[in-house]
Amino acid sequence: MEDPLPGYEGKLRELLESKGARVGCRIRITRFGGREIIEGLLMPKHAFSSPYVVVLKLDNGYNIGVEVREDTSIEVLECRTPPKAMRIKLAPRPELPYVKVIGTGGTIASKVEYETGAVKPSMSPEDLVELIPELMDVANIDSEVLFNILSENMTPYHWQVLAERIAKLITNESFKGFVVAHGTDTMSYTAAALAFALQKLPCPIVLVGAQRSSDRPSTDAALNFLSAVLTAVHAPFGEVVVCMHATPSDTLSLVHRGVKVRKMHSSRRDAFQSINDLPLAKVDPISKKFEIINKRFIPRASKDELVVKPKFDDRVALIKAYPGFQAEIIDMLVDRGFHGIVIEGTGLGHIAENVIPSIKRAIESGVAVVMTTQTLFGRINMNVYTTGRKLLQVGVIPGEDMLPEVAYVKLSWVLAQTRDLNEVKRMMLHNYVNEINYVHTLELYPRWIEL
Amino acid sequence: MEDPLPGYEGKLRELLESKGARVGCRIRITRFGGREIIEGLLMPKHAFSSPYVVVLKLDNGYNIGVEVREDTSIEVLECRTPPKAMRIKLAPRPELPYVKVIGTGGTIASKVEYETGAVKPSMSPEDLVELIPELMDVANIDSEVLFNILSENMTPYHWQVLAERIAKLITNESFKGFVVAHGTDTMSYTAAALAFALQKLPCPIVLVGAQRSSDRPSTDAALNFLSAVLTAVHAPFGEVVVCMHATPSDTLSLVHRGVKVRKMHSSRRDAFQSINDLPLAKVDPISKKFEIINKRFIPRASKDELVVKPKFDDRVALIKAYPGFQAEIIDMLVDRGFHGIVIEGTGLGHIAENVIPSIKRAIESGVAVVMTTQTLFGRINMNVYTTGRKLLQVGVIPGEDMLPEVAYVKLSWVLAQTRDLNEVKRMMLHNYVNEINYVHTLELYPRWIEL
Repeated sequence: MEDPLPGYEGKLRELLESKGARVGCRIRITRFGGREIIEGLLMPKHAFSSPYVVVLKLDNGYNIGVEVREDTSIEVLECRTPPKAMRIKLAPRPELPYVKVIGTGGTIASKVEYETGAVKPSMSPEDLVELIPELMDVANIDSEVLFNILSENMTPYHWQVLAERIAKLITNESFKGFVVAHGTDTMSYTAAALAFALQKLPCPIVLVGAQRSSDRPSTDAALNFLSAVLTAVHAPFGEVVVCMHATPSDTLSLVHRGVKVRKMHSSRRDAFQSINDLPLAKVDPISKKFEIINKRFIPRASKDELVVKPKFDDRVALIKAYPGFQAEIIDMLVDRGFHGIVIEGTGLGHIAENVIPSIKRAIESGVAVVMTTQTLFGRINMNVYTTGRKLLQVGVIPGEDMLPEVAYVKLSWVLAQTRDLNEVKRMMLHNYVNEINYVHTLELYPRWIEL
Repeated sequence: MEDPLPGYEGKLRELLESKGARVGCRIRITRFGGREIIEGLLMPKHAFSSPYVVVLKLDNGYNIGVEVREDTSIEVLECRTPPKAMRIKLAPRPELPYVKVIGTGGTIASKVEYETGAVKPSMSPEDLVELIPELMDVANIDSEVLFNILSENMTPYHWQVLAERIAKLITNESFKGFVVAHGTDTMSYTAAALAFALQKLPCPIVLVGAQRSSDRPSTDAALNFLSAVLTAVHAPFGEVVVCMHATPSDTLSLVHRGVKVRKMHSSRRDAFQSINDLPLAKVDPISKKFEIINKRFIPRASKDELVVKPKFDDRVALIKAYPGFQAEIIDMLVDRGFHGIVIEGTGLGHIAENVIPSIKRAIESGVAVVMTTQTLFGRINMNVYTTGRKLLQVGVIPGEDMLPEVAYVKLSWVLAQTRDLNEVKRMMLHNYVNEINYVHTLELYPRWIEL
């Protein structure tokens, strides 16, 4: 049997044992003579916390450490035995389309094992239907777990494996669409990577995540996931998209073009927003309504048109311009054999003039240098000011209105195909999957404050 | 006499001369048998353009190159002689407050010399009043040009010179407020730098710029400048702020806290927006109305309270996390003797786990490492996920809700005062000038799209 109180030691452990507490129990801690009362689920402790601290998962989903003092009392409110999952084998419903769900990790479609406190992927069709019963009426789900990693640990290598797996499934099977469950930290990078790696898609590839894990009352996992499956089934486009909460309330999801979306908030459920483009669609998961917002989409292609170019060059850096930027950083990257550098410049695409000699040397050494802007919104225009013109003269490739992160992914993808700088420039300026939007309308800029 | 057609050569020059054209003339170019007509001011050419190209400044302010072909006709519409500036010496009006204007460069309060096409600073009180006659009724203007550089070329050294100059003026003279004319590319960095360098201010320091140069019909220079002077006079706060267009129309300016503002668009006039905080005030320059929006401001201090700490460490780097981030970049910075690194991490403050050993080594070598988030909005919270906790364990300093750029400026400022990592941590977490906002309300997040 596993330790019911992992990480707890000494007097605190004795106290918890005397109350019959184990990890997963709901407990109440009372301190300061009743002036502070904290309730939550008892969680395992990691090795570095103080021996006097109890770790609780609060109802808002956050874990906190509570110090147990002389005047602290602990009460066990409930020790649920986790319900045995219904292991009903779902029978396929031939009238419904098939959707493939691929797990890569992250907080969506995961379960906390109350025995260990660990968050484990829970991606079987049965698990998903248990979490979201509405799925049964939308599609037949087929699922697999490809990775189980935190999204901050995704690399260009994972992009390739994922792209190759989906390419194989597209070629050999007949899914109406794909849903990729992904951690939100780097979801937009993976979306852009898949968009370049897999073109002329016969069906949408919908990345979906959750900002709050599915064991939290405020979880957005179910709504996002149902919306993603609805998109996989109903979307007329063959694009890689991100499907996430539109607003903080549980009413609507937005489907963003994978090469035009960015995580814009560290914690809100509506963190993902389109930049320099309209979202492609909105989805009402309650009424199961899917509606196109942006008519400039790439329609589903036929299966045999699929273009697969799944490789990425991992010797590309994304660096940021700032006052005092040290030109030696460029020199170091060149000397270390980097193949490409994307600069997140200022304004219309600038960096300090004293950096230009190092950029010139980089390009002369065969390193591709692409300019984007840290304003995120808007387009670069390197013809307006002297600095921009000088950068163009030494061979910097202007990144149009591409997000710095998308330009990074695209340059990694381009450099895996060619190192010829003329060809690199041609490909960076070629618009493959609407990663460049040539027409910006006023409503693409957010309304920042009620005036 | 200067060349009237600088950069123009050969047949094209002969053609222009035969029409009596010189730089500054308004000309009309007709091509494709009349199907394309372009009008604009003839501009000088730089050395790298094709010999067949005429450079025009369009009415929208952009310069374009137009190729002159066989079927192209050129017509000179007008060759104005630039009006002689009225050299009226302004008499001070003793009933009005004194405002000090400091020029650093950028497109605000500059004139295009039509003889050379160069944009020159034009910052004398007379120039300013000529541009914005309304100023005469608001304040007595005293002005000086401290630098004349493009803002992408600003460095921490310039921040110091500017801070020391303002400190001296505050100590020795009695201005109601300061207006600093600044290029927009790095204006928010300079605002943050001044905010840390000059605390307990007896008056506001208002940075102002223009997204369109003052020779363009769509210039925002006059409105922004008048709003900035109104702020300098009327603001109850002693803070460093940025005053810029609130909307694309010429009706309202917003005053943003210097440590909570960011240029969010490469070209729009309302590019500057507050992030994670409300703007401090709004200004209607037409009715000359100044109104506080955010009551959490730092009031004007008395003159003798001024705290001057104008130094910055220029061995600090701001780097960005991305999938495939190469840990060797951290190693290189440490080996090159950098003193501090600000990471623009993902989500709640993460970077790939395989980078942690290099971060650990950096901190063990005495390099301060601060975590922020590339989502810009929201706060980091490194206690939620394993990666964050591991980063905290090796000594990464959590950057709260500070913008990556502000954390970069602050760390440069802190490291100029101490290299002791415990003290660096204490200072980075200390809230000096409301660079940390502990309470985020829902309305701080923009409304992205009309649903």
